[in-house]
Amino acid sequence: MTQVLIVYASDYGGTKKMAEAVAEGVRSVSDCTAVLKEAEQASSEDLLASDALVLGSPVHMGAPDWRVKKFIDTVCSGAWMKDRVVGKVGAVFACGSGYGGAGGGCELTMLAMLNNIAELGLIIVPLPKSTPGYKIAGLQWGPYARAHDIDLNPVGVSDEQVEASRHHGANIARTATLLKGRNPFAG
Amino acid sequence: MTQVLIVYASDYGGTKKMAEAVAEGVRSVSDCTAVLKEAEQASSEDLLASDALVLGSPVHMGAPDWRVKKFIDTVCSGAWMKDRVVGKVGAVFACGSGYGGAGGGCELTMLAMLNNIAELGLIIVPLPKSTPGYKIAGLQWGPYARAHDIDLNPVGVSDEQVEASRHHGANIARTATLLKGRNPFAG
Amino acid sequence: MTQVLIVYASDYGGTKKMAEAVAEGVRSVSDCTAVLKEAEQASSEDLLASDALVLGSPVHMGAPDWRVKKFIDTVCSGAWMKDRVVGKVGAVFACGSGYGGAGGGCELTMLAMLNNIAELGLIIVPLPKSTPGYKIAGLQWGPYARAHDIDLNPVGVSDEQVEASRHHGANIARTATLLKGRNPFAG
Amino acid sequence: MTQVLIVYASDYGGTKKMAEAVAEGVRSVSDCTAVLKEAEQASSEDLLASDALVLGSPVHMGAPDWRVKKFIDTVCSGAWMKDRVVGKVGAVFACGSGYGGAGGGCELTMLAMLNNIAELGLIIVPLPKSTPGYKIAGLQWGPYARAHDIDLNPVGVSDEQVEASRHHGANIARTATLLKGRNPFAG
Repeated sequence: MTQVLIVYASDYGGTKKMAEAVAEGVRSVSDCTAVLKEAEQASSEDLLASDALVLGSPVHMGAPDWRVKKFIDTVCSGAWMKDRVVGKVGAVFACGSGYGGAGGGCELTMLAMLNNIAELGLIIVPLPKSTPGYKIAGLQWGPYARAHDIDLNPVGVSDEQVEASRHHGANIARTATLLKGRNPFAG
Repeated sequence: MTQVLIVYASDYGGTKKMAEAVAEGVRSVSDCTAVLKEAEQASSEDLLASDALVLGSPVHMGAPDWRVKKFIDTVCSGAWMKDRVVGKVGAVFACGSGYGGAGGGCELTMLAMLNNIAELGLIIVPLPKSTPGYKIAGLQWGPYARAHDIDLNPVGVSDEQVEASRHHGANIARTATLLKGRNPFAG
Repeated sequence: MTQVLIVYASDYGGTKKMAEAVAEGVRSVSDCTAVLKEAEQASSEDLLASDALVLGSPVHMGAPDWRVKKFIDTVCSGAWMKDRVVGKVGAVFACGSGYGGAGGGCELTMLAMLNNIAELGLIIVPLPKSTPGYKIAGLQWGPYARAHDIDLNPVGVSDEQVEASRHHGANIARTATLLKGRNPFAG
Repeated sequence: MTQVLIVYASDYGGTKKMAEAVAEGVRSVSDCTAVLKEAEQASSEDLLASDALVLGSPVHMGAPDWRVKKFIDTVCSGAWMKDRVVGKVGAVFACGSGYGGAGGGCELTMLAMLNNIAELGLIIVPLPKSTPGYKIAGLQWGPYARAHDIDLNPVGVSDEQVEASRHHGANIARTATLLKGRNPFAG
């Protein structure tokens, strides 16, 4: 059984809805299970017991929510120090208002989470442009849901954004299954 | 007279149209002049003679067009080595297809150009969200024109994108005028 | 009087020592004052009362400490929403173990803070390579102190790192003084 | 047979030496072969015939050499448009003067190349801190060789930098072998 841990923070439910879609995608792959945790509930045990880590966050001022960062600082950094998750799989997603039409800082937000993923020594799963839903909900680093219109009114996470998130979850689960028990960093 | 140098590359005219709008914004400020150059025509003399440098590029695979990078590598790097433009002003803008709805890599594209701007020791002018046109054409690092629709069909640079670019040019010209001859890095 | 607000988090005192050096640099410029606050103590009033905002953080997994991010999410985002500090001045600095010899993620850490600075509409002060101390303590985005040796043993913040930080503070104070009361974004 | 394509530019031989070490690492893994190409010689056929793409560049003003970018713009972008290499493997490395002690922009340089790698839909291999040589030559995104001393005098690529590069090559080859013919993005 391949286990994928999804850690997220959510203010109004948009990132949570994406996290659930990622989990659904994971579970759609045979012999794969998803563990969904809010950032403040996720533990070191959750991380160590999983084959993949997916981080999801609202976009706040061009970087992840402080609760996601607290999880990184207080849980992930210990695993980094002792090289405990090297060779597993990692990925990210984000949700934001996207004010301005260019993602409102979602790219650096995803990179801030990916920097942690890379430091942990996780193999990174991006989001190919051929993913269903991508043309509304895509960035090369992972699915992105713009959950507000151009005047900052909330419009929620759309079907395409759910679809891209679900495919992302399945992609991650398949990659983790292919690499499980076969750490490519172990010579 | 405050002189602003705008260096850009353009494939289908979108970035060029933005560059012209930035120039128009510069010229709208009293005692300010704009020099507009394609990346392959811009020289070291252009850079040294100017009070501000603005770089504009299409978004190609999440980074600036190679012609803009060639200008940086062959012209800017010499000025960097000898600290010749420290204390002037710098800014950026970008144009792309934005496939996926999150800017298609425009944020890292602008940062790649801003890294050069910062290395040169230029004071950086961002784009505040209060800028007219921002809600269609904004990113915190500078104006961004999505010039294609969600199916990658070209739609051109819109009025809002021109408006934000013009304001960006005026902001840069005003900042350069305030700092002209008063290098804040000279103790 | 020009007021510069310096907001930081510190684990073992390295970032704090840099913050104090930045403050000393600010105070070395005539008619400039520095307000030094730990991230969890800094308020919206501090931000609104100041002419410049400087953010400093340890490098944790390639991004700012969660306490700095909490300040950004809970204090800065409100000012962003209402465009309350547009046209002021901003800058950053960082301190880390630098494991690996390439800064250990300090560049994305500084960019994560600068993204907030840019969103607030602050004019950004980089660190020119001509700054005293730069050859030990420099990155184009701001001073960086590697406070550990290559085996991760703590060595503290060096004289060069203090010197570069002090100059950064003075550069910021001079820029803020030149721009004070003359918002270049106000047409 | 797993084929890894290594595309690089080099000014004084440092990046070339790293590229050769990456290739040596690839060849150390059974049934793996490396194809080494200067950026201006690498073709679309090279890319399509390979199971992994590794990009290496000098750090020039915080971004890849324009010749590497030209390869990306003129060769990779075509493969991106038609989704022709989705599910293969990608990685990066860099070489620079590192002036300032924080990598001199190597992190954004690697990210500029990784943005292309992600857009192509390649699974990304980072560099774990447990890699031999990492403490001198590591960044989470890939090996980095500082090839100048603190006064910008050239010192060449060191043994540790070669060692980390060789391990990176082997890691990439093993990952590509595990994923070969089993595209995790194909549902």
